[in-house]
Amino acid sequence: MNEAASNLAAGFFEPQGFLSLAKNVGIKDDTLDLSVIYSTVPAQAAALFTQNRFPGAPVIVGRKHIGGGVTQALVINSKNANVAMGRQGLDDAIEMCRLVATELELDYRHVLPFSTGVIGRPLPMDKIRAGLRGFRSELRPENLTRVAQAIMTTDTRPKYTARRIGSATIAGIAKGAGMIEPNMATMLVYLMSDAAIPAGLLRPMLRRVVDVTFNSISIDSDTSTSDTVVLMANGLAGSVGKREFERALLEVCEYLAREIVRDGEGATKLITVEVTGARTKPQAKRVAKSVVNSPLVKTAVYGSDPNWGRIVMAVGKTFDRTIAPERVTIRFGDTRVFERGMPVDCDLGALSGYLSQAEVTIGVDLGLGTANTRAWGCDLTEGYIKENAYYTT
Amino acid sequence: MNEAASNLAAGFFEPQGFLSLAKNVGIKDDTLDLSVIYSTVPAQAAALFTQNRFPGAPVIVGRKHIGGGVTQALVINSKNANVAMGRQGLDDAIEMCRLVATELELDYRHVLPFSTGVIGRPLPMDKIRAGLRGFRSELRPENLTRVAQAIMTTDTRPKYTARRIGSATIAGIAKGAGMIEPNMATMLVYLMSDAAIPAGLLRPMLRRVVDVTFNSISIDSDTSTSDTVVLMANGLAGSVGKREFERALLEVCEYLAREIVRDGEGATKLITVEVTGARTKPQAKRVAKSVVNSPLVKTAVYGSDPNWGRIVMAVGKTFDRTIAPERVTIRFGDTRVFERGMPVDCDLGALSGYLSQAEVTIGVDLGLGTANTRAWGCDLTEGYIKENAYYTT
Repeated sequence: MNEAASNLAAGFFEPQGFLSLAKNVGIKDDTLDLSVIYSTVPAQAAALFTQNRFPGAPVIVGRKHIGGGVTQALVINSKNANVAMGRQGLDDAIEMCRLVATELELDYRHVLPFSTGVIGRPLPMDKIRAGLRGFRSELRPENLTRVAQAIMTTDTRPKYTARRIGSATIAGIAKGAGMIEPNMATMLVYLMSDAAIPAGLLRPMLRRVVDVTFNSISIDSDTSTSDTVVLMANGLAGSVGKREFERALLEVCEYLAREIVRDGEGATKLITVEVTGARTKPQAKRVAKSVVNSPLVKTAVYGSDPNWGRIVMAVGKTFDRTIAPERVTIRFGDTRVFERGMPVDCDLGALSGYLSQAEVTIGVDLGLGTANTRAWGCDLTEGYIKENAYYTT
Repeated sequence: MNEAASNLAAGFFEPQGFLSLAKNVGIKDDTLDLSVIYSTVPAQAAALFTQNRFPGAPVIVGRKHIGGGVTQALVINSKNANVAMGRQGLDDAIEMCRLVATELELDYRHVLPFSTGVIGRPLPMDKIRAGLRGFRSELRPENLTRVAQAIMTTDTRPKYTARRIGSATIAGIAKGAGMIEPNMATMLVYLMSDAAIPAGLLRPMLRRVVDVTFNSISIDSDTSTSDTVVLMANGLAGSVGKREFERALLEVCEYLAREIVRDGEGATKLITVEVTGARTKPQAKRVAKSVVNSPLVKTAVYGSDPNWGRIVMAVGKTFDRTIAPERVTIRFGDTRVFERGMPVDCDLGALSGYLSQAEVTIGVDLGLGTANTRAWGCDLTEGYIKENAYYTT
């Protein structure tokens, strides 16, 4: 298993040629709610969008705009998702791009729009128009961490990190995932590099990395209507090795993915599920997701209860006929608790102590083959219920 | 939609020739924990078992024993699930059948064993042996509701009902579903009739009915290792119309399915999701299950929050490419809140009042075809977290 980025801290430094701003325009309250990120030169870009069948208007517009493979600016508002608003929603998302394009003298199709927040309310376009008037003079190279702050909804802290690849840099900022918030949605991830990477490589590289990072996390099994990951590479720092770049991209994404889960709504613990011995990667992922999404596993971890029967149940509820109970081994950290179809005699007190830590690992070996994978999730607590039940529209 | 059994109360009367007992043998504490149900004549029988890949030992033995299509006795313990115990578990389940068969002078393969409770601990067979010694004299026709009590785990009340079909009767008893309990598992349902129904009809009939009742409920999306539904028909009341019988079976099962969900762990509300206008039944069921299992929909209902954006999200996360947002209509009760891709202007206060009731209906019309279905679930509350987190082994 790749442990590359597991424990790296959140250092940050800016790639060349990325200017940004984050401000308040009063969409809901007086916190930061509008951001622009601008590459001084056109950047090669790739993006991956939510698979939800009710995508937000910005997702629909963004999918079209990224088609050309070149992006030069991102415009992002929080506090309103611009989802389920019909034609008006599309018009508003396009207007946001046009406002930015006019100010920066770009083709509006080189701008991607993003919105996160409540579903089913019209965007206050008058406020957004006013906020974007003459914004060019507000752009600064050091504002990216401020943008990380401005895109937060119920995230408790901004999420950002960066890595060097030779003389180039890749930086990423992200906000919380998986419909974790009352009436709000969206995981948003922006990855910016000054490396020069051929356009044709960016998308497959992003897909591979997202598959083992953002697509391997779950807070509550709900999939937002606006999830988006964007990667821009403007080339100002010149060429770098493709392999080194992909490794740095993986580290940045894994760090941000884990931070998103760790900051999941109501979460007190980060759960890593390691599945080994699977026949195929997809089988490993199905098992890992089943365990990490099980409410009974999540509540057991919350209560530091070494209740491995629930993991047995969660593996079994994949209904995968090739899984044989007598070949499966289950462990908490390094301690095996179930193997050959039987409990392993072990110290429940010690296991409970292990589970009381802020990071816990559940291991499942299927004993069938050599494929493996990891997934990350969090515990399920009263905090999640409170944040999501006691909100009134 | 069939509203047949929706609001019927839990009347109860015994079918002819079913004797039973329920007693305490001290498996965990001093509450009822051991039951036997006995048909005085061999009964045609059909059963459906959990699809979990880690079935309990009684499920493995029961699957074999039901193969012949004839069953005359059921033996059931609570407080211990006999799951994940390897060869010993199988031996214990078979011994339970043999002990009952010897006392009742039956072929032991005409006895089905059941266990529900903690996973991963050996059955205390000495206590079960002592409890079954000479039990024949304890069998009574009026004990079935007492058995309904004895099979409970964290259910807060016993679940039973009966219907007449001409001069025949069908009665059902059930316990709580879906791994709803700390360390415990299992939905168990026993359906007993004195009608004469040809063996070949019982299984397809049971499958059809279970598909729209027990297979359409979800408390927490977790699938127990021991779920079982058994139908026995001993023929003592003679022949009845097949259609009338299936209708009564449906009413009994729908009543019990709804009661199981209503009594879900921590639940305060019964949620019915009605999906109409689907292309196919399986499509309707996928959408209904996605809505009824969404933690964000469940917490919104708990908080009486008419947050239909979460229903939009839950329909969309089926990733079904044939679903078109602009064709979908969403309603709470009779009030449409979303249609043609846009919010419907409505009274949020009134909707919140509607959602504060003990039973709420969420309607989703896909606008694609004529297939429809229903699913039942419950809200997600702090009670669920408490019951499942604060248990220590």
